[in-house]
Amino acid sequence: MIRLTCATAAGLLWWVSFAAAQTAPATAGPAPAAAIEDLVTANRILNDRGVLDAYGHISIRHPTNPNRYLMARAIAPGLVTAADIMEFDLDSNPVDRRGRALFIERFIHGEVYKARPDVNSVIHTHSTGVIPFSVTQTPLKPIVHNASFLHVGVPVWESRDGFGATKMLVSDGKLGQSLAARLADKPVVLMRGHGDVVVAPNVRVATARDVFTDENARMLAVALSLGGPVNYVS
Amino acid sequence: MIRLTCATAAGLLWWVSFAAAQTAPATAGPAPAAAIEDLVTANRILNDRGVLDAYGHISIRHPTNPNRYLMARAIAPGLVTAADIMEFDLDSNPVDRRGRALFIERFIHGEVYKARPDVNSVIHTHSTGVIPFSVTQTPLKPIVHNASFLHVGVPVWESRDGFGATKMLVSDGKLGQSLAARLADKPVVLMRGHGDVVVAPNVRVATARDVFTDENARMLAVALSLGGPVNYVS
Amino acid sequence: MIRLTCATAAGLLWWVSFAAAQTAPATAGPAPAAAIEDLVTANRILNDRGVLDAYGHISIRHPTNPNRYLMARAIAPGLVTAADIMEFDLDSNPVDRRGRALFIERFIHGEVYKARPDVNSVIHTHSTGVIPFSVTQTPLKPIVHNASFLHVGVPVWESRDGFGATKMLVSDGKLGQSLAARLADKPVVLMRGHGDVVVAPNVRVATARDVFTDENARMLAVALSLGGPVNYVS
Amino acid sequence: MIRLTCATAAGLLWWVSFAAAQTAPATAGPAPAAAIEDLVTANRILNDRGVLDAYGHISIRHPTNPNRYLMARAIAPGLVTAADIMEFDLDSNPVDRRGRALFIERFIHGEVYKARPDVNSVIHTHSTGVIPFSVTQTPLKPIVHNASFLHVGVPVWESRDGFGATKMLVSDGKLGQSLAARLADKPVVLMRGHGDVVVAPNVRVATARDVFTDENARMLAVALSLGGPVNYVS
Repeated sequence: MIRLTCATAAGLLWWVSFAAAQTAPATAGPAPAAAIEDLVTANRILNDRGVLDAYGHISIRHPTNPNRYLMARAIAPGLVTAADIMEFDLDSNPVDRRGRALFIERFIHGEVYKARPDVNSVIHTHSTGVIPFSVTQTPLKPIVHNASFLHVGVPVWESRDGFGATKMLVSDGKLGQSLAARLADKPVVLMRGHGDVVVAPNVRVATARDVFTDENARMLAVALSLGGPVNYVS
Repeated sequence: MIRLTCATAAGLLWWVSFAAAQTAPATAGPAPAAAIEDLVTANRILNDRGVLDAYGHISIRHPTNPNRYLMARAIAPGLVTAADIMEFDLDSNPVDRRGRALFIERFIHGEVYKARPDVNSVIHTHSTGVIPFSVTQTPLKPIVHNASFLHVGVPVWESRDGFGATKMLVSDGKLGQSLAARLADKPVVLMRGHGDVVVAPNVRVATARDVFTDENARMLAVALSLGGPVNYVS
Repeated sequence: MIRLTCATAAGLLWWVSFAAAQTAPATAGPAPAAAIEDLVTANRILNDRGVLDAYGHISIRHPTNPNRYLMARAIAPGLVTAADIMEFDLDSNPVDRRGRALFIERFIHGEVYKARPDVNSVIHTHSTGVIPFSVTQTPLKPIVHNASFLHVGVPVWESRDGFGATKMLVSDGKLGQSLAARLADKPVVLMRGHGDVVVAPNVRVATARDVFTDENARMLAVALSLGGPVNYVS
Repeated sequence: MIRLTCATAAGLLWWVSFAAAQTAPATAGPAPAAAIEDLVTANRILNDRGVLDAYGHISIRHPTNPNRYLMARAIAPGLVTAADIMEFDLDSNPVDRRGRALFIERFIHGEVYKARPDVNSVIHTHSTGVIPFSVTQTPLKPIVHNASFLHVGVPVWESRDGFGATKMLVSDGKLGQSLAARLADKPVVLMRGHGDVVVAPNVRVATARDVFTDENARMLAVALSLGGPVNYVS
């Protein structure tokens, strides 16, 4: 009986998996080559700048369908080419997986696009400049004009709130929704002991924001070490 | 009537713009190739050293006409070639624009050249070493002999004084004059939450000063963290 | 007489050396090429990341014989190729030396493999990020999820305990045993004023752990400089 | 009359210069190619490591004549080739100048070789790691085994003692003697607000010492920022 049950379970799993394959989301059609090229370039820039390590990722909303987004398969950002860009629906299901490895934390992107119609590009990094600010009480505030967009405040998302001690990766939609809720209407949210998420109306602005968020954090740490009041961007 | 007024306004704008084109400043003639080459090299050096990011710029006074200066079109310093060098009058009007993008903050250069006949090269950077000193009360003083030119003092320009909270870019002549006034007779002025301006009798000295200002700032931050009195260059 | 004695001593040494050669440990046979390639790649990665300087080394347990391990001859990690990989027994005797220079501290590897059957890769670095934590009372605790494996604690090995002031290199089996005892069942042990040893079930995990241990240490130093309580990974 | 006087002065200068040429020190003969190659390699290594900037220099004592030393003409260390190596006597006169530019501070080398028969290589750097320790009361002590040679103490040379406020460059023999006296029998002397001098029995050891002095200084600054007692190398 146990054997049969197991077989049934396995069969059920196969069936579910098959059903999932059957219901893969429809494509929005090919994105303009220029949009893909910008996305690839953003990967290269942030890799060169050392802001994006092997586990960070960048997406853009599909230019012709707001319910789809585009992101590389799971691959180091320094190696991304146009051929690596995949299409996802906002539940972060791939349109055409073809066996490729996916970033576990792609749910960050899908849930942010759902919650923020104004956002057309999302970047998730483990930027070493910002992480110290995610584990202390010192707020990450802008000191340099290039980072003045941080002036509205930088919330910190704490995965332990509501999800327990073991969940530090945004590995499903619920965690993504929680993170998007903490981001609210801001351009940047820190993830405690993990990194950040940076959003913008387009990938070029998102890329610049990502670089300047990291730079501002590093310079702020030095400014604070000098002592005395800090003259923040007002 | 409104339509007519609009048309008139548009015509007026066209006329003003045409007039402006008509009154583009006269050229001082081609600058010596060696001067251009030094300017290009300075861009490459400061980019390689990481002192000049994509938004910094370097100029030289025209070798044969003190009322003109030479600077690259708006382009990343690491990509500057001789073909990118443009000529400007001291009001920062291009002599021969040909549709090229210009640095918004070129007024820094024009106004400094007006105020400082002794200066033949101006550099504006967002040097991450100096910015922490621009937002704290800790003065940037020299600790290393290569930066002994800082001994005369490093003023900090605060754009909020007289220009309000939103003006952090030196986007017109008035802001440039204010900045040049704060620089006074010094070699370096910090711009609060923005970067610095470094001047010198020639581009080679300006380039060296720029590198050593940044290095001195970084080393001073470490020296201050060690505690106790700091032995500044006297 | 003295001459004779000397000749005897020399002969004895020759004989001992010959005997040693005679008793060189037997080979476990060639390791799979993929295992060797991973080991070479790990050397290149950690060299590129600046975690491994010219004196660090990486080993793997022989895939088909747990009593042998594989490690490069004494050579800078950035230059390691498959041809440089040598085989050692767990007393760190080379199977086939052929006159090649050996890392003096290879005993770290042999003794850890003896003490830790679960470990199949060992890395020894002079990682500049962790050394400050080896000479102060500040514990190296994880602040970033990638370094959560440090949560079990990072012991510090003090070579002065039991070996006197002059022994800072793990140049024999006894020192290696002492170090392995201090490591106990942990993934990382710091060596006071020297570096660290990082272990894992395989070389890929060991390499990642090595990178993240160094990064976590650097970010923790910044977080601590910001002041206030630090929110460690729980 | 003035004309005549000028002519006389010019003639005198010519004569003095001719006399100097006449009394140029005799060569010790060509140095072994391997020695030159080591010296060139040391320049490249220290340039690659960022320890030696464009104004640092490395010398070796002539292998066959202890009264001569070898050093590159004034050129950036990253560009040094064997053809740039010149020979000097211990008063730092070039044997065969041929119009080449010389390092102003070559007197450091000549005077150290006079005072220290045990030294066969001298390096002068503006290492940014050590300079903060040259301008504070915090002693540069070793925390890492690779820098244990600093255990004997690192004196700081203050050019203001005896030479006034304006002399920060070792531009003559007297300043070189003062610096060599402060170095005494140590391996490293810091120069206040300037850099350091590192000496060793050969260029390979000097190069290693130079790298580890800088690294130790950087790590010590971090260790001190962590607070509490520091466990120095004993």
